[in-house]
Amino acid sequence: MRRAIDLAARGLGTTSPNPVVGCVITSAGGSVVGEGFHAAAGGPHAEIWALREAGELARGGTAYVTLEPCDHHGRTGPCSEALLKAGIARVVVAVPDPNPVAAGGLKRLRHEGVAVESGLLRAEAERGNAHWLTYTRLRRPFVTWKFAATLDGRSAAADGTSQWITSPEARADVHRLRGQHDAIMAGIGTVLADDPHLTVRPGPATPLRVVVDSEGRTPPGAKVLDGAAPTLLAVGADVPREDALRVPRGPHGLDLPALLTELHRRQIVSVFLEGGPTLAGSFLRTGLVDRVVAYLAPAFLGSGAAALGDAGVTGVGGIHRWEFEDVVPIGPDLRVTARPAPPKEN
Amino acid sequence: MRRAIDLAARGLGTTSPNPVVGCVITSAGGSVVGEGFHAAAGGPHAEIWALREAGELARGGTAYVTLEPCDHHGRTGPCSEALLKAGIARVVVAVPDPNPVAAGGLKRLRHEGVAVESGLLRAEAERGNAHWLTYTRLRRPFVTWKFAATLDGRSAAADGTSQWITSPEARADVHRLRGQHDAIMAGIGTVLADDPHLTVRPGPATPLRVVVDSEGRTPPGAKVLDGAAPTLLAVGADVPREDALRVPRGPHGLDLPALLTELHRRQIVSVFLEGGPTLAGSFLRTGLVDRVVAYLAPAFLGSGAAALGDAGVTGVGGIHRWEFEDVVPIGPDLRVTARPAPPKEN
Ligand SMILES: NC(=O)c1ccc[n+]([C@@H]2O[C@H](COP(=O)([O-])OP(=O)(O)OC[C@H]3O[C@@H](n4cnc5c(N)ncnc54)[C@H](OP(=O)(O)O)[C@@H]3O)[C@@H](O)[C@H]2O)c1
Ligand SMILES: NC(=O)c1ccc[n+]([C@@H]2O[C@H](COP(=O)([O-])OP(=O)(O)OC[C@H]3O[C@@H](n4cnc5c(N)ncnc54)[C@H](OP(=O)(O)O)[C@@H]3O)[C@@H](O)[C@H]2O)c1
Repeated sequence: MRRAIDLAARGLGTTSPNPVVGCVITSAGGSVVGEGFHAAAGGPHAEIWALREAGELARGGTAYVTLEPCDHHGRTGPCSEALLKAGIARVVVAVPDPNPVAAGGLKRLRHEGVAVESGLLRAEAERGNAHWLTYTRLRRPFVTWKFAATLDGRSAAADGTSQWITSPEARADVHRLRGQHDAIMAGIGTVLADDPHLTVRPGPATPLRVVVDSEGRTPPGAKVLDGAAPTLLAVGADVPREDALRVPRGPHGLDLPALLTELHRRQIVSVFLEGGPTLAGSFLRTGLVDRVVAYLAPAFLGSGAAALGDAGVTGVGGIHRWEFEDVVPIGPDLRVTARPAPPKEN
Repeated sequence: MRRAIDLAARGLGTTSPNPVVGCVITSAGGSVVGEGFHAAAGGPHAEIWALREAGELARGGTAYVTLEPCDHHGRTGPCSEALLKAGIARVVVAVPDPNPVAAGGLKRLRHEGVAVESGLLRAEAERGNAHWLTYTRLRRPFVTWKFAATLDGRSAAADGTSQWITSPEARADVHRLRGQHDAIMAGIGTVLADDPHLTVRPGPATPLRVVVDSEGRTPPGAKVLDGAAPTLLAVGADVPREDALRVPRGPHGLDLPALLTELHRRQIVSVFLEGGPTLAGSFLRTGLVDRVVAYLAPAFLGSGAAALGDAGVTGVGGIHRWEFEDVVPIGPDLRVTARPAPPKEN
């Protein structure tokens, strides 16, 4: 199953709006005879690739799949059927499918006399599929907030200059992460201050660029409008712009849950939120951040713009308490990943 | 030599104003026959402990010492002489002694026909003796600035509350580090806001508490004056207080180089600077911080007091650029240690 999870990860960034899935097939004798992963929406599922490779050796064997096989006729035939046809005797699944349309594969297989098990390495497999599981369960994209700052939490100096606080290595890593998301989002404050491009360096991925801009102030010459990738301006519902997405207003600007619901409707599975501090504060306050990726430079400013703006906290009792997931040196900097702490047991 | 460096570290916190030193002696045949470290000022040096353990087996052997053996008659006899008497044939040293009074041990040994080498694992041994080497070379204490903050660099919420941003594990680690320093320092702002105790939890070490307090505003009932450890109030030279240390004023409060020179005169080898942000900013600006220890909680505030106040930076070109030395999880938090980046080569 660990191997299947590794295989699944190869699809990150290209399977949207589908999950990433990996599959390993062992023969009746127990040796690995087929491997596969889901590489692109519309293409064959992981199970199909693995069955093709296994051929006749699949008969009587076991399929290890990171996600419950589908049982519906979508763009590809149901995997449950393919597994049955190939004569698979046992199916082991990490995560049951939360998708009401696709679910039912295990039930069908069990009904047909296949031995089925579910839950093997589930936590690890859920982590690998976090984007899609959140998308499916909460009916909104998974949101990763990225920021870059000094160790004292500043992302610009007092005079507003902010270039190269973090290293070229960190910036390259940001491009890699952008490529794993369906959309890159920034607030109008950032667009006006930095005129960022919000694209991925040459590669197959061209995530949607989303600017949160209540009044439609994005200048026509802004780099986000250069056509290098599709761009969506989110403006207030009352702003008469046909080329923009019109979103109701909320207490602190545009209504963020409404914006995310609309992105879900457009099959955006994951959003890479690049700030700035005001927009990030609103996302945190609303509980809409699923992961934080912080690039911390070993540097100090002592003044200048803070990495995070008002997030609705007044006393330390209201602190947003998270937990570290992962800490990795990236060149001279540190990449720190955190996720919301699981709810306290009472 | 690596073993000698490990032995040396056992003296951390109890050898002041002496360095930490470790020594390993191997016999003529090459096996380890003696080990020692310097445990307390006034007590025997590392070499003496190691020679005692080795006894006659030292004859013709090699002594590995983390610091050049002394050649002067201080409170203990010169180690150079003891090594000669024991018949040591070869002395290998990591760091030459920068202390003009103690230096000369290697010269004397070479003169007497002993084979000498210097520089083995020097960088590692210097790191182990950083406090004392800075004290000796720069004639001021080594300064470690410690702070605790959220990932977005806040050390208190907007309403001033700041209790328990970091974990009990992190606070215990702070006590451990305090015990490795000769003095614990805080600004009057912190004393007035938090009334900290600035002591080490039960143990042999009672570092001097130093309050930087230009006008002598420390309340008589403040916990730092409770007698649990000695306390030094540093006040302006013009403040008529006999019980305090009177220090000239500088551009941003008391003159910090003058304060450190006075602490050096009092044989304070190392200072643990616990803030607050204003005092830490002055130290950074003046280039008087040798190490930063940051306890970062996986939490966000978005407003409230910043971990670091004005440090003299206006544009990003003036950023204080450091490098990470060490990153360790401490309970749910992260302890990040950084040191000033070595000067750029041109
Ligand atoms: N360190 C980093 O990683 C990083 C990343 C990005 C930016 N930055 C820096 O951040 C600065 C810009 O920050 P900023 O805070 O002014 O800009 P921002 O967060 O990018 O944009 C804030 C603006 O977005 C609009 N908005 C619409 N709906 C909102 C909602 N629900 N919540 C919050 N905002 C909403 C508001 O303007 P309207 O009312 O006009 O819609 C608001 O003023 C720049 O200096 C940039 O360099 C740093
Ligand atoms: N996160 C942490 O680890 C941490 C640690 C400590 C404190 N804190 C927080 O920091 C806050 C207090 O901070 P603060 O910045 O007001 O206090 P501070 O840095 O402790 O003290 C600053 C005061 O020290 C005096 N001072 C004398 N000479 C100075 C010099 N050369 N440079 C700078 N200051 C000098 C000045 O007052 P005079 O002119 O009267 O002498 C100055 O106002 C509290 O809320 C506390 O909770 C946080």
